[in-house]
Amino acid sequence: MTVIKALEEPKLKNPVLIVGLPGIGNIGRVAVGYLIKELKAKKFAQLYSEHFFPFVVLHKSYQVRLLKNYFYYWSDPKKQRDIIFVTGDCQSQSPQGHYEVAEKVLDFVEKYGVKSVFTIGGLATGEVEKKPKAYGSVTHKELVEKYKNAGIEFEVGKRVGYIVGAAGLLLGLARERGMKGVCILGETSGFPIVTDPKAAEIVLRSLTKMLKLDVDMGRLAERVNEMEKFIKKIESLQRKAVMEIAKDEATPVVKKEEMRYIG
Amino acid sequence: MTVIKALEEPKLKNPVLIVGLPGIGNIGRVAVGYLIKELKAKKFAQLYSEHFFPFVVLHKSYQVRLLKNYFYYWSDPKKQRDIIFVTGDCQSQSPQGHYEVAEKVLDFVEKYGVKSVFTIGGLATGEVEKKPKAYGSVTHKELVEKYKNAGIEFEVGKRVGYIVGAAGLLLGLARERGMKGVCILGETSGFPIVTDPKAAEIVLRSLTKMLKLDVDMGRLAERVNEMEKFIKKIESLQRKAVMEIAKDEATPVVKKEEMRYIG
Amino acid sequence: MTVIKALEEPKLKNPVLIVGLPGIGNIGRVAVGYLIKELKAKKFAQLYSEHFFPFVVLHKSYQVRLLKNYFYYWSDPKKQRDIIFVTGDCQSQSPQGHYEVAEKVLDFVEKYGVKSVFTIGGLATGEVEKKPKAYGSVTHKELVEKYKNAGIEFEVGKRVGYIVGAAGLLLGLARERGMKGVCILGETSGFPIVTDPKAAEIVLRSLTKMLKLDVDMGRLAERVNEMEKFIKKIESLQRKAVMEIAKDEATPVVKKEEMRYIG
Amino acid sequence: MTVIKALEEPKLKNPVLIVGLPGIGNIGRVAVGYLIKELKAKKFAQLYSEHFFPFVVLHKSYQVRLLKNYFYYWSDPKKQRDIIFVTGDCQSQSPQGHYEVAEKVLDFVEKYGVKSVFTIGGLATGEVEKKPKAYGSVTHKELVEKYKNAGIEFEVGKRVGYIVGAAGLLLGLARERGMKGVCILGETSGFPIVTDPKAAEIVLRSLTKMLKLDVDMGRLAERVNEMEKFIKKIESLQRKAVMEIAKDEATPVVKKEEMRYIG
Repeated sequence: MTVIKALEEPKLKNPVLIVGLPGIGNIGRVAVGYLIKELKAKKFAQLYSEHFFPFVVLHKSYQVRLLKNYFYYWSDPKKQRDIIFVTGDCQSQSPQGHYEVAEKVLDFVEKYGVKSVFTIGGLATGEVEKKPKAYGSVTHKELVEKYKNAGIEFEVGKRVGYIVGAAGLLLGLARERGMKGVCILGETSGFPIVTDPKAAEIVLRSLTKMLKLDVDMGRLAERVNEMEKFIKKIESLQRKAVMEIAKDEATPVVKKEEMRYIG
Repeated sequence: MTVIKALEEPKLKNPVLIVGLPGIGNIGRVAVGYLIKELKAKKFAQLYSEHFFPFVVLHKSYQVRLLKNYFYYWSDPKKQRDIIFVTGDCQSQSPQGHYEVAEKVLDFVEKYGVKSVFTIGGLATGEVEKKPKAYGSVTHKELVEKYKNAGIEFEVGKRVGYIVGAAGLLLGLARERGMKGVCILGETSGFPIVTDPKAAEIVLRSLTKMLKLDVDMGRLAERVNEMEKFIKKIESLQRKAVMEIAKDEATPVVKKEEMRYIG
Repeated sequence: MTVIKALEEPKLKNPVLIVGLPGIGNIGRVAVGYLIKELKAKKFAQLYSEHFFPFVVLHKSYQVRLLKNYFYYWSDPKKQRDIIFVTGDCQSQSPQGHYEVAEKVLDFVEKYGVKSVFTIGGLATGEVEKKPKAYGSVTHKELVEKYKNAGIEFEVGKRVGYIVGAAGLLLGLARERGMKGVCILGETSGFPIVTDPKAAEIVLRSLTKMLKLDVDMGRLAERVNEMEKFIKKIESLQRKAVMEIAKDEATPVVKKEEMRYIG
Repeated sequence: MTVIKALEEPKLKNPVLIVGLPGIGNIGRVAVGYLIKELKAKKFAQLYSEHFFPFVVLHKSYQVRLLKNYFYYWSDPKKQRDIIFVTGDCQSQSPQGHYEVAEKVLDFVEKYGVKSVFTIGGLATGEVEKKPKAYGSVTHKELVEKYKNAGIEFEVGKRVGYIVGAAGLLLGLARERGMKGVCILGETSGFPIVTDPKAAEIVLRSLTKMLKLDVDMGRLAERVNEMEKFIKKIESLQRKAVMEIAKDEATPVVKKEEMRYIG
């Protein structure tokens, strides 16, 4: 069960999809969150799934909320192309769920005519990067040529061999539908898991160049501070949830005598 | 596969849903169990699910019973509003199951016209609470105002960030359907896992105030004793079931020579 | 996906279901296997499931076979009641699978008019039982009275609190359909896991008394020897399969430098 | 969700299915990969599944690709029988997935009239085999006689008792559909997990004899080198993916004070 509920049905012109979810360095989450704020994109749909963790978060300290992914749209005043953004609280907690949620997202945006997909993630290097780079991978070779001046190193495969989770799967599954796309990965230490605004900025600079978006980076640090708190909370909750489950299973207090069982 | 079977189809007037299942301190289970007894609520449906543990419990020491959740109704003689109670043996044992079972419960009660949901759980503090408080979280801000005199501290988010399992998910999913609701959490030590009648009482005092129910607390200690035995049994069985599964997987007795395998 | 394939569609008169699958002491498997042999029951359907382990066993050392459960029937020459037997290679390897397989079995036999279900299992005591007893649990209280002279101790709940897996769930789910039934458990050490023909005999004596079956126990030891080999093989294979899966996951050989990853 | 997409709909005459996927010693993957190259078989369909790992691999270091299994066909110029080959990046990562993917593969090839299935795998002996042998198991006894001169030892059951994963399940499930088939297993050390071209050659010699295929083995070493790189990459990625998941779950960094939770 993965459910998408539309809040509005906007008319969009030639929209592209940009996805940034929590992950390594929270680069995708932060970059897309910033674009949404700066462009004043509008929320128009939301998704929840049985493949997310089975808990609700407390919003403003008294209000329960399901874990969700959100869809926003931005109508380009210059009429070049509109944008659908996807961001949210979390990714799937099961392998099958990753596929199911990604397919649902693509089913939904395909109805709006999306033909291009941009996903954002982090490339964990294990070291503090003084000058992080943006790496990229594509669905089609021609995109390497098309975006060669966007400041992206497309030989990412020389550093890593795969892209785990939504950033990768969305692109792989989009390709199956004849969509084209790019995954942009910001270099980040990745350990310990901290939000990395510097890497997010590098990625944003490339992305805005690719899409010819006019976005001021001046408020990034400030916005990251705002987002950070909520992202950290859910991240920490997920870790605790995993721990509780583990604890439940690991420390049964059963008297020896009770150990008799039937089967 | 989650199945709800109706035993009766009562006519209910403006019913609210109150849910208390086994969990931290068994506060929800005990509080709702007490209300059912005191109000002489009537069982009218039952639910079982493949997401519950795969065993049957022995009732009265000779009769097998599936693990179940039960629906009871109470027709308010003062015609203010009727009540549907949900309580039972257990919660789901898989993350996806939590979502599936909660949706089934809401589907079922929605048909009876339920628009308000009250769920009860425990807030584990890790310390013995001499004067436990009732904390609350809501689906809609206005409920904080509405119930401000019920003795509930609504700033629960200052102490914790999430509500795991049925108590939280039912509320989160109810909100998606336009229902309103409150989750009341009784402060309890939470470790070791013991039924906490004092916390259950605190929660009951708030709940009965909110719903203007006239319920005598005088028999709570006695009722808790009655319920305790059965709750403890299933709790212990679940721990043992988990252990057996773990043991099965952890101690294979295979001769080295047999280790050749095919693939 | 759980599939039942009928090999024949026998006409059965008032059939009862008797189920014995591998489990503690393999008591159910051995007892039902013996009845099938002695009564010359005929195989008429087979079941396989994605919830069984994902491997095939080698039969007669060269022939592949899916893991299966099998349905046999016996037409009572005295026209008292016919019998459907279910036995097989294994039980489900997932919790949900236990429910799914049990429901499929009941769906199938219900079409033949089955109204009574007998399941057989083992009660592991952790000690070598010199004089093992047969314990029983029922779906309906009246069965305790009905079978009081069958040599079964119905106060099993005093020794254990639950019945895990097919023997218990089949009975619990049968009760939901209005079927009646008994689970007979033979007392056995349960550790280390060995086939226990003595406990199987005790159970058989009660079962044949309940159903007024005329079965000679004289060949039990011999038959157990025949069955033992195959049962042990699959048991050992399942342990090894679990180990391999565990090993695969536990011993990744990854160079540190390769640890960089993307997300 | 397991999806097969056809790229072409070839007319095939009396086709047999030959399956070789990654596994022990990668014998199946390498043997089938070699036949595809040598016979210039043509790719005509591809399969992906939510039961594969949730990541994409980077092809040619810049292009994302879903994990897939591929279907190739070869039209026999001598008109004896055509061949459908199945090979690919991986097998399922969940037990249920093994069944689902195998059924989908058989559904698909059945439409082309496939009645015979040959699967290839490795038999891990734990020792370096100087003169590895090809072992075989069959769906029907008569095949042992039919292929007695193909250099296969059909008493594989004397060495092992089961075949895990696709090589075994495809044969077991094919038998349920009335198809016939053989699983050929090349003896290999199996530890540490390395591609074993010698065992692949032994298997290929038997397979080509059985199918009267005229294939030169001279380029095997060379081809193995080509394939090895890609196979190793995905293998290593899967290990890392498993590690990351494990690490995520194993090392939560939660402050003690945060341990309070609700339920």
